[in-house]
Amino acid sequence: MLSTMQDSDLSIAQLLRHGSTVHGDRTVTTWTGSGSRADTYRTTGHRAAQLAHALRALGVTRDERVGTFLWNNSEHLQAYLAVPAMGAVLHTLNIRLSPEQVAFVVNHAADRVVIVDGHLVPQFNRVLPLLETVRHVLVANGAAEALDVPPGVRVHSYEDLLGGQPGEFGWPVVDERRAAAMCYTSGTTGAPKGVAYSHRSIWLHSMQLCMTDGMRLAQQDSALAIVPMFHAMAWGLPYAAMMVGASLVLPDRFLQPGPIAEILAAEKPTFAAAVPTIWQGLLQHLEAHPQDISHLREAVVGGSACPPSLMRAFSENHGVPLLHTWGMTEMSPLGSVARPPASAAGDEAMAYRMTQGRFPASVRARLIDADGAEVPWDGTSVGELEVSGPWIAGAYYTPQGPAAAPESFHDGWLRTGDVGRISPDGFLTLTDRTKDVIKSGGEWISSVELENAVMAHPAVAEAAAIAVPDERWQERPLVAVVLRDGESVTAAELRDFLAGTLARWQLPENWSFVDEVPKTSVGKFDKKRLRARYEEHGLDVRRVGHHD
Amino acid sequence: MLSTMQDSDLSIAQLLRHGSTVHGDRTVTTWTGSGSRADTYRTTGHRAAQLAHALRALGVTRDERVGTFLWNNSEHLQAYLAVPAMGAVLHTLNIRLSPEQVAFVVNHAADRVVIVDGHLVPQFNRVLPLLETVRHVLVANGAAEALDVPPGVRVHSYEDLLGGQPGEFGWPVVDERRAAAMCYTSGTTGAPKGVAYSHRSIWLHSMQLCMTDGMRLAQQDSALAIVPMFHAMAWGLPYAAMMVGASLVLPDRFLQPGPIAEILAAEKPTFAAAVPTIWQGLLQHLEAHPQDISHLREAVVGGSACPPSLMRAFSENHGVPLLHTWGMTEMSPLGSVARPPASAAGDEAMAYRMTQGRFPASVRARLIDADGAEVPWDGTSVGELEVSGPWIAGAYYTPQGPAAAPESFHDGWLRTGDVGRISPDGFLTLTDRTKDVIKSGGEWISSVELENAVMAHPAVAEAAAIAVPDERWQERPLVAVVLRDGESVTAAELRDFLAGTLARWQLPENWSFVDEVPKTSVGKFDKKRLRARYEEHGLDVRRVGHHD
Repeated sequence: MLSTMQDSDLSIAQLLRHGSTVHGDRTVTTWTGSGSRADTYRTTGHRAAQLAHALRALGVTRDERVGTFLWNNSEHLQAYLAVPAMGAVLHTLNIRLSPEQVAFVVNHAADRVVIVDGHLVPQFNRVLPLLETVRHVLVANGAAEALDVPPGVRVHSYEDLLGGQPGEFGWPVVDERRAAAMCYTSGTTGAPKGVAYSHRSIWLHSMQLCMTDGMRLAQQDSALAIVPMFHAMAWGLPYAAMMVGASLVLPDRFLQPGPIAEILAAEKPTFAAAVPTIWQGLLQHLEAHPQDISHLREAVVGGSACPPSLMRAFSENHGVPLLHTWGMTEMSPLGSVARPPASAAGDEAMAYRMTQGRFPASVRARLIDADGAEVPWDGTSVGELEVSGPWIAGAYYTPQGPAAAPESFHDGWLRTGDVGRISPDGFLTLTDRTKDVIKSGGEWISSVELENAVMAHPAVAEAAAIAVPDERWQERPLVAVVLRDGESVTAAELRDFLAGTLARWQLPENWSFVDEVPKTSVGKFDKKRLRARYEEHGLDVRRVGHHD
Repeated sequence: MLSTMQDSDLSIAQLLRHGSTVHGDRTVTTWTGSGSRADTYRTTGHRAAQLAHALRALGVTRDERVGTFLWNNSEHLQAYLAVPAMGAVLHTLNIRLSPEQVAFVVNHAADRVVIVDGHLVPQFNRVLPLLETVRHVLVANGAAEALDVPPGVRVHSYEDLLGGQPGEFGWPVVDERRAAAMCYTSGTTGAPKGVAYSHRSIWLHSMQLCMTDGMRLAQQDSALAIVPMFHAMAWGLPYAAMMVGASLVLPDRFLQPGPIAEILAAEKPTFAAAVPTIWQGLLQHLEAHPQDISHLREAVVGGSACPPSLMRAFSENHGVPLLHTWGMTEMSPLGSVARPPASAAGDEAMAYRMTQGRFPASVRARLIDADGAEVPWDGTSVGELEVSGPWIAGAYYTPQGPAAAPESFHDGWLRTGDVGRISPDGFLTLTDRTKDVIKSGGEWISSVELENAVMAHPAVAEAAAIAVPDERWQERPLVAVVLRDGESVTAAELRDFLAGTLARWQLPENWSFVDEVPKTSVGKFDKKRLRARYEEHGLDVRRVGHHD
């Protein structure tokens, strides 16, 4: 039976219309280094209309991609709104990638226009010669003259181009399942992969962020979005803020602990979102330069797991609860939020806060074991996490259309590449990446949990676990250990030490004492290089005990 | 450009799956008069599966309507979940209608099955002989034997029918735009009209209820739904509760102030929702029987406008903010929520709380004047309110398919029949019904505001304003006045009194002094009867002054 409800599409145009009228007095504040500049959402609406007119005058039609190479600022917010609302597709470019990587994603998405931050012109000059499809570059917040323009490309001042354009635009009706915005995964392995969010997925995700059990974003809030707007749509904050009229505070290029502390002191936001390293840096800064930050009702930490000590320090020293969240670019990105259940208090509540969080109703999750079977949500069974829902990718973008390769998608579900367990009440704990987990005779040993167990020994400074081939068990763990200065311990002693906490079949036979564990540029164990060293040199393995 | 997001339908099946697993330990508590009975959401999921099997065994297939003639209790919640999740359509029947009206809507919707409360069997016995399409009646919470069964109808005990059925059901995939549930408007004029909510509209509406700027429903809550589950889906609370794992407290048939106070004392809900008369009754009860109700973080008042005195009394005497909301059965029903903006405090905030509230991003609104033109949101211009959005009806149900008659729908927008104004920041103030507003030469005079102005005179007990035909102005106001005992005032004196607050063209020339204003069954002025009396007897009108 048909419903009698209106066939009403969810759209960025309505988000813009609503935010710039009902919440027209709310503001987006951009930090300038020594102070701030603020626009109301009413002005933001006018500017977005001007941008849409300007882009249309440059020939941008429906579906064409408009790239942004911008810090978090009011111009970026205008692009977030205008480009999808006019029916085109916003493509946020990660300014931290190499010029070759940026060029790859621009060419892959076939961007026609890129909006570049004046402060990023020197960096963009290394990208521009590599671009194949871009015809226009708009330079915001800086001089367009500094750009080295190749033939066939025209450069414009963002301000000049918008000036004189009408402040109203007849936003078209766009099917809610069409693409509104694109973001490429940073691609630690292989080429970056494009995710194209729909108007519908952004709308639903924005509602989730504003739910009390989500991030609680509300009209009363002033939200400091430290997470870059080129990382998974700044975790959805700009759109969610327009939806409910929360004011936005944007740090522009001032992401060091000192400036962040200044922004906090000057703007007194009620909410903020950033990765753990930002919070860690701020914490250390605040130790040396005490400052009241209790105006933050809550601060979201995501992007990678939050160390328990960091969470405790914010809560105990500053009265600010850090809210642990987990997600992926492919998930818009919000997957789960670690709010303890109503029944938990004290240490139990803190234990819940340390998990990756609980799934909301819109995110379905399942764990798949080595045999492809679903494992129960019992808090102990381990499997690869697969997710499904209206704001989760079911494919990657290709110029030929969405493509769902089996290494990334399984019956329409997204394979996260994460290994973990889920409690009966829907809280996720991730223990490893599928590429790092050690598959021993059909059972999975978490490399991360094994490393933590080894590092609990007082003589051990660092420990990294990788899988090595085994004739009988397919794979068995090898642990590379760095000892603390002046300490000594044998492989047999370490194995005995682990026997107290791990199951017998999880105890490693293969040990290697090394001077250092190779690390990635962001300081994580580089297991790819460790595996390569093992394959080349054998890592001088000591064998002790055996698994039978 | 296509998005790469999953083509994932929003569904009651997923709401049920999520609520009964992730929030399986949360509870639905039904009051029994002397205590309560509680089910977990896990059990509710099992019961819903059993109900779906039972209904399927009775031949209920996709799209068929299953009526409920039930109080607010756990069985009603099971039907709310099972019927749409299995692909059929839940039809909640208003037990307060006459037997003829109930029979009309059951026959109109062609219900195949009705689930009846054992305590409502005597009442349903007057309905049953009038039904044309019902083949099965399930009696919950009472003896099926008391039902007078006509030929062709089979009667079952709800408990017996569910017993032994499997606790799991393979919920089908249902297109999100298909009907999930139906509710008929109570139809103060004309026949009741059917609204068919979709899976999609219910999902989006549930998210809105759980937004911080909505009703803030969250896992931490225990929500007392006093608003009947046969009135506009209990304002969406049962579905929203399943979405986030808020516990539900249901009063069954115990709606008098004493039992409500008992339920509050025993269950200590954090949230509650009811019409103003319920809150007024509770307030009076609490004056005589003091009780701490500060466990309520907030209580929603809706269905009709909340008197300011009531709102103040709850806040000042009990520390419970009453949250004013406005909506319609055709709007799922949530249209607006009166949370003051961040900038308002004190009296200004209270003034915002007294409005009908602010529109969320999903609800578009416009005001249309007598000439069909849109009037601005300036806080003073008045027009008929039209609304649009994904949980708003675009038509009424008919057996031949959705029908959008022009008196109810306008270019796809719902005509609310309400007249009011909207502030620049999106707060709605309703001033009248379109059928009651006085249309004087293209300008609208609010009958309600005119009545309030007259009733502010110390000699006046009651005043009702209606339109009377006028050769020059089409319509002019007539005010029927009831004087207080022992008081006297002339029409000219009243007109002079009004001159201080109303514009000159709004001042009525036509006055009638009457012994009483006719009232409807719920105590509202019955202007239909007042107009009829005027047409029949002229109401002995005194004319004073004139509008030129």
